[in-house]
Amino acid sequence: MSAFQSLKDHFQKIDNFNHLSAICGWDAAAMMPSGGNEARSRAMAELSVHVHSLKTEPQLEEWFGKASEQSLSTQDTAVLREMKRSWLMSNVLPAKLVEAKSLAGSKCEHAWRTQRGNDDWQGFSKNWQPVVELSQEEAQIRAEATGLNPYDAMLDIFEPGTNSESLTQIFDDVKSWLPSLIDTVITKQSAESLIESTGTFDTSKQKALGLEVMKLLQFDFKHGRLDESVHPFCGGVPEDVRITTRYDEKEFMQSLMGIVHETGHARYEQGLPATLSGNPSSEARSMGIHESQSLFFEMQLGRSAPFIGHLSQMATKQFTSHDPALFEPSNLNKLYTRVKKDFIRVDADELTYPAHVILRFEIERDLINGKISYKDVPELWDAKMQSYLGLSTAGNYKNGCMQDIHWTDGAFGYFPSYTLGAMYAAQFMAAMKQSVDVDRALNAGDLTPIFTWLSDNIWSKGSLLTTDELVKQATGEILNPSHFKRHLETRYL
Amino acid sequence: MSAFQSLKDHFQKIDNFNHLSAICGWDAAAMMPSGGNEARSRAMAELSVHVHSLKTEPQLEEWFGKASEQSLSTQDTAVLREMKRSWLMSNVLPAKLVEAKSLAGSKCEHAWRTQRGNDDWQGFSKNWQPVVELSQEEAQIRAEATGLNPYDAMLDIFEPGTNSESLTQIFDDVKSWLPSLIDTVITKQSAESLIESTGTFDTSKQKALGLEVMKLLQFDFKHGRLDESVHPFCGGVPEDVRITTRYDEKEFMQSLMGIVHETGHARYEQGLPATLSGNPSSEARSMGIHESQSLFFEMQLGRSAPFIGHLSQMATKQFTSHDPALFEPSNLNKLYTRVKKDFIRVDADELTYPAHVILRFEIERDLINGKISYKDVPELWDAKMQSYLGLSTAGNYKNGCMQDIHWTDGAFGYFPSYTLGAMYAAQFMAAMKQSVDVDRALNAGDLTPIFTWLSDNIWSKGSLLTTDELVKQATGEILNPSHFKRHLETRYL
Repeated sequence: MSAFQSLKDHFQKIDNFNHLSAICGWDAAAMMPSGGNEARSRAMAELSVHVHSLKTEPQLEEWFGKASEQSLSTQDTAVLREMKRSWLMSNVLPAKLVEAKSLAGSKCEHAWRTQRGNDDWQGFSKNWQPVVELSQEEAQIRAEATGLNPYDAMLDIFEPGTNSESLTQIFDDVKSWLPSLIDTVITKQSAESLIESTGTFDTSKQKALGLEVMKLLQFDFKHGRLDESVHPFCGGVPEDVRITTRYDEKEFMQSLMGIVHETGHARYEQGLPATLSGNPSSEARSMGIHESQSLFFEMQLGRSAPFIGHLSQMATKQFTSHDPALFEPSNLNKLYTRVKKDFIRVDADELTYPAHVILRFEIERDLINGKISYKDVPELWDAKMQSYLGLSTAGNYKNGCMQDIHWTDGAFGYFPSYTLGAMYAAQFMAAMKQSVDVDRALNAGDLTPIFTWLSDNIWSKGSLLTTDELVKQATGEILNPSHFKRHLETRYL
Repeated sequence: MSAFQSLKDHFQKIDNFNHLSAICGWDAAAMMPSGGNEARSRAMAELSVHVHSLKTEPQLEEWFGKASEQSLSTQDTAVLREMKRSWLMSNVLPAKLVEAKSLAGSKCEHAWRTQRGNDDWQGFSKNWQPVVELSQEEAQIRAEATGLNPYDAMLDIFEPGTNSESLTQIFDDVKSWLPSLIDTVITKQSAESLIESTGTFDTSKQKALGLEVMKLLQFDFKHGRLDESVHPFCGGVPEDVRITTRYDEKEFMQSLMGIVHETGHARYEQGLPATLSGNPSSEARSMGIHESQSLFFEMQLGRSAPFIGHLSQMATKQFTSHDPALFEPSNLNKLYTRVKKDFIRVDADELTYPAHVILRFEIERDLINGKISYKDVPELWDAKMQSYLGLSTAGNYKNGCMQDIHWTDGAFGYFPSYTLGAMYAAQFMAAMKQSVDVDRALNAGDLTPIFTWLSDNIWSKGSLLTTDELVKQATGEILNPSHFKRHLETRYL
């Protein structure tokens, strides 16, 4: 057997164990009763030790050496590249550092769950300091291995090929027009009247509505399902994608659009190249591209006029005891595009969201590169919130720098993916419209042409192309944030 | 670290992987969409190869050798004995035979799913012959390793300590009184009138009813849950027991009593000794003892007058649009104790069930011991059905020897557990009544004294005692089938 084939077999084996991890992880979030947690954690830890040992087997180095001398097709060259990337990711850090960061992160995250509510920055920062320092150490080691600067080496985990220099440029541009755009839109919207959602919305009807919209979005129910969890997510495996939502009886709109968002993630997973299944090259290209699909569904399709029209019909049919005026397309549209300056990223609207991300990017970049200290974060947060959204978080930690889970366990480098996703989504839509009559498909309620374009250009590519190659082949250019600006101006002005 | 401790750690590791297998197995039956099957099968096969390699690690032999020289407490001696039993079970068969039997069994079982419907004995027997032969080979190897005769060595997998000589004696005794008892009861019941269940029973109401009865039976919902599957079962792990049922909108009684049955299995699992969790000594003693708990719940508690009274109240409350006369205790009791001679074991009532088991025991015993050929089975089946239940299965394979899944993949030695379970259940009830006012607890709707007895005498013992020790400590004597006979006569005459 060739070294290349041995590597493929080995990564298939790893994937088999990852399958079990994905299903048991979904189960823990969506099904498991509380008393099962201890035994489950033990089993999952055992599995992760085993997977790590598979990923770090000494013989892999020899196989990679030999495989690099094999004459491979273009596709197999990409397959080898992605296996090697995965292998390097698992082998670059000393086990001691991984363990120390995992322990410090778990401790910090666990305490944060109560400290946040108490606005306890002092307590939090004591646990957070080692997380930051260990992350800096991690970034340094990754930087040496990749030749990138420390923060870029962290970014590389989630967004291979993206660097902070170009991100800084892009985000600086956004900062030059976003705050004034937000102000203009808020002033415009303040003159509009709308009907707020009131009353209760039966959970079983919300679920029926969610399933109906998933059908419209051609979610493949032979290869996935919808359930509930406290924190909605898209999990499982490409052959069996598990998405979740959370129902609030007082409100149906958030869960519904949450389902649209997760269905975007799910269809990407369901559309990944099955012929490469079990290999890293078959996986999603990056977190930003993954988010581009969920945001394509949520923002590009989900908030389009014809889609809102479908939602209006479906909701009117389900919630027969409510005032139908609430579900009028124009009203739903207003509710789904209302802009508000507020503290919390996860509750932010499409327009203010990038401000939340840019703020975090700038802080974590300078933190990981050692230009600022963890102690400086609250003050910087306040200054940037004032500058970008005109809000002060002085002394307000829980609505400021303590609001997100990401930093508590050291996931630095992840935040940019959210806004990269929004930008890619807008760019994909602009490109798609060159060849697909998107509005006609949406109006007809048969979205097949839209999904064919996404499948051909994004989903079926897995990780065979780099992000830049993928985006250029799909849209004719690499990331161009002007599409995002144009999209926002068109929708909100 | 002592060899004994090394063994315990190793078996804990195996148990961690078994946890993943149990949860993903439950998921495959209760949650997984059909398109997930291929990837899941691959992942489960990978896991089972890994678990097998852990169970057969060469260093275990040395550890068992050294541990046998350690001075151990009584409990640790039992812990060692059970680890060794588990190890021997995994190591006694050559890998080639395991693989061959697994392949032949899968092929036979898969084809059986269509052959049965077509009454295709010719087609079936072609696939079944190798399964029988490989099972005979397996039994021979197990016999040599254990010093038992071939069939007893198969029995030992499910019922350690039980042998076919004593089973033959016990079952011969049952055969001496059961057929005439059945006839007497059927004649008696033919004079009684009863109201049949009609109309539809909403699935969500059936589920609510099931959950209510599980509460009465003190199922621990912090450590388990109820779901649906085509074939009801009790799965998961002791810390998180997953039971399933199947709802039929035309009929509520079968699913309801099915839930009572699975709750019996579940409470045994939930009550196993947590301090030994992860070790074979903490597992259920045998299939027969497991079945004794489900049948204790289903037959001893579930069909008692006060329990039927509770079911009557609950059902009347749920199914408000049905004729309440259907749910009258006396009517429910008649419906739940109706005796009928019929072909199918899984649909059989309490009284005729042993006849189905004895027939299978006698045939599989002689088959595995090489006294009869697989070709003789249909004729023997017909003769025994005529003798025990007065029914002929000549030329009727699907309702005869092709009805069960067990033999299709070579699970010979399992059938006796069902009737052993029924006998143990009756014996446990007789013993319990010596010290517990069972009727009072049932009437009061607080079954705590009953469960305390079961927990103290059965559940908390895990596999620390042999079956005979367990039964003797609990009831003062080893298996005594006269309790079962008395129970049947009291209930049915």
